[in-house]
Amino acid sequence: MTSPTPTLQAELNVALLQHTAKASTAEFFQFLEHEVAKCAQAGSQLIVLQELHNGPYFCQTEDLSQFDRAEPIPGPSTELLGKLANKHQVVIVGSLFEKRAPGLYHNCAVVLEKDGSLAGTYRKMHIPDDPGFYEKFYFTPGDSDGTYKGFEPISTSVGKLGVLVCWDQWYPEAARLMTLAGADLLIYPTAIGWDLNDDESEQKRQLDAWVTIQRSHAIANNLPVLSCNRSGFEQSPSDNDHNDNTSNRAESGIQFWGNSFVAGQQGELLAQAETNGEQTLLATINLTKTEQTRRIWPYLRDRRIDAYDALTKRYID
Amino acid sequence: MTSPTPTLQAELNVALLQHTAKASTAEFFQFLEHEVAKCAQAGSQLIVLQELHNGPYFCQTEDLSQFDRAEPIPGPSTELLGKLANKHQVVIVGSLFEKRAPGLYHNCAVVLEKDGSLAGTYRKMHIPDDPGFYEKFYFTPGDSDGTYKGFEPISTSVGKLGVLVCWDQWYPEAARLMTLAGADLLIYPTAIGWDLNDDESEQKRQLDAWVTIQRSHAIANNLPVLSCNRSGFEQSPSDNDHNDNTSNRAESGIQFWGNSFVAGQQGELLAQAETNGEQTLLATINLTKTEQTRRIWPYLRDRRIDAYDALTKRYID
Repeated sequence: MTSPTPTLQAELNVALLQHTAKASTAEFFQFLEHEVAKCAQAGSQLIVLQELHNGPYFCQTEDLSQFDRAEPIPGPSTELLGKLANKHQVVIVGSLFEKRAPGLYHNCAVVLEKDGSLAGTYRKMHIPDDPGFYEKFYFTPGDSDGTYKGFEPISTSVGKLGVLVCWDQWYPEAARLMTLAGADLLIYPTAIGWDLNDDESEQKRQLDAWVTIQRSHAIANNLPVLSCNRSGFEQSPSDNDHNDNTSNRAESGIQFWGNSFVAGQQGELLAQAETNGEQTLLATINLTKTEQTRRIWPYLRDRRIDAYDALTKRYID
Repeated sequence: MTSPTPTLQAELNVALLQHTAKASTAEFFQFLEHEVAKCAQAGSQLIVLQELHNGPYFCQTEDLSQFDRAEPIPGPSTELLGKLANKHQVVIVGSLFEKRAPGLYHNCAVVLEKDGSLAGTYRKMHIPDDPGFYEKFYFTPGDSDGTYKGFEPISTSVGKLGVLVCWDQWYPEAARLMTLAGADLLIYPTAIGWDLNDDESEQKRQLDAWVTIQRSHAIANNLPVLSCNRSGFEQSPSDNDHNDNTSNRAESGIQFWGNSFVAGQQGELLAQAETNGEQTLLATINLTKTEQTRRIWPYLRDRRIDAYDALTKRYID
């Protein structure tokens, strides 16, 4: 277990950096330096980046050469993120393609403390795989010790961060385990978008579902939720190199749907970004509202832990 | 385990009966007979009633005489519900105050088959207790065998019904266990409302949270959700007989907030009732959409059952 956060401040100013893919890591860090400076000047204390922010979303095809993007953690990116965090005295949540060993890679969130040190990492536990999002090819799922590890909050000067990544956001189990392990807030760096072959009503249902499921984690756990998503269209590197027979295939690319948001402890939207374009979303959350909310909506009090054993089953048959 | 549903029909016409409290069980059944006949004529095959529909919500105070309302199951109400179900060839989900033994009472959902037989029961597993909702005084929590029982769907001619009750709706665990045990849809008879001492913005947050958390169960499990809530104001029998020092106390009664709804497999709202007044809400759900949705949003495929053990802990400390 991580040690308790010494002083939980009531109000916390947060920023989410929603942006389109940059052509290179260098170009991204140039953009980031500018945005972090602006956020810090505006009073932000915690800055959340989107999933795999260093470059394009490279999982649209299965391509061996993409593994060259991976880097060790700590490594070059955590060093740059740490310098920025230290320079502007902010906590930064980033998302990197981790090379853990030759041939062993993770989708890894990193948290940099105000002093520039690496406060902790989280390796994405639930790995998706569907046309245009071939993540099971690239990412080994995060380790588990069979209890909750994997799902362990990261202690920082601004609170215990329940950092999860993208596909994790569809799993109430992940949010609950972070909560039980003491998270003060839930954070989702994300890269999700539309297959433009889907019609408008289907696209609307998908976006609504994405906002709703994450707001529900705020509600079920009485915790603020910060979700930072990619925006912009990213062309698929190739339409032909994956033998894919589904009609749902992303033929030409993904339209990342933005809509990064911050929700309070009752799931109420405190701030939400646009669908398109780059936007740095600022919001203030109140971490002490968790205890107030839990006193009158005490879900943790009434959980039927005597009847939940089968949650560790694949299916009851 | 219950046996598999022999034939899962694609389209199912459902009805939710949202109403104000009736003065007596006799008056309620008169109302019910009229509504069920109307629904059946309109083609409804499954009719869901609100929580403790026979009379007023009696848990606003702790009053020994209220236990006289309890009845055995099977008993007079299941007999009346069964007759109605048989007469109109519909499946009915009801909600009763069960007397299981002298001094042992449950908040129990009942399912009546088209032939009038009792298809099954569900005893509310999560019991709330807060000012104006003194349910822990009245209701013994449903039994568990330590795995999932308690959370077991009820097999009927229209599908396996994942019937849960009110406070259960805030628990993703309950919806998930019903899903893993094979539920074709989730059903929540409910009695929830506002403390009129709360201001309008707080009331809005609570109602939004209630809709959102239940829509999230549809999303996380790719199942339709039917939630039938009470409406109307019910005066508290007494403002003085409970030694309650909180400022949040329901001083004068509960304004039940209606808004019964039906959601599809992506959490999309198919139908929603008004806040006030009586309303019989009709909708058509498509049960075969579950498998279609799960093929492209395969949450069940990727659950990290190797890392969920701590879900059976009260807290990780």
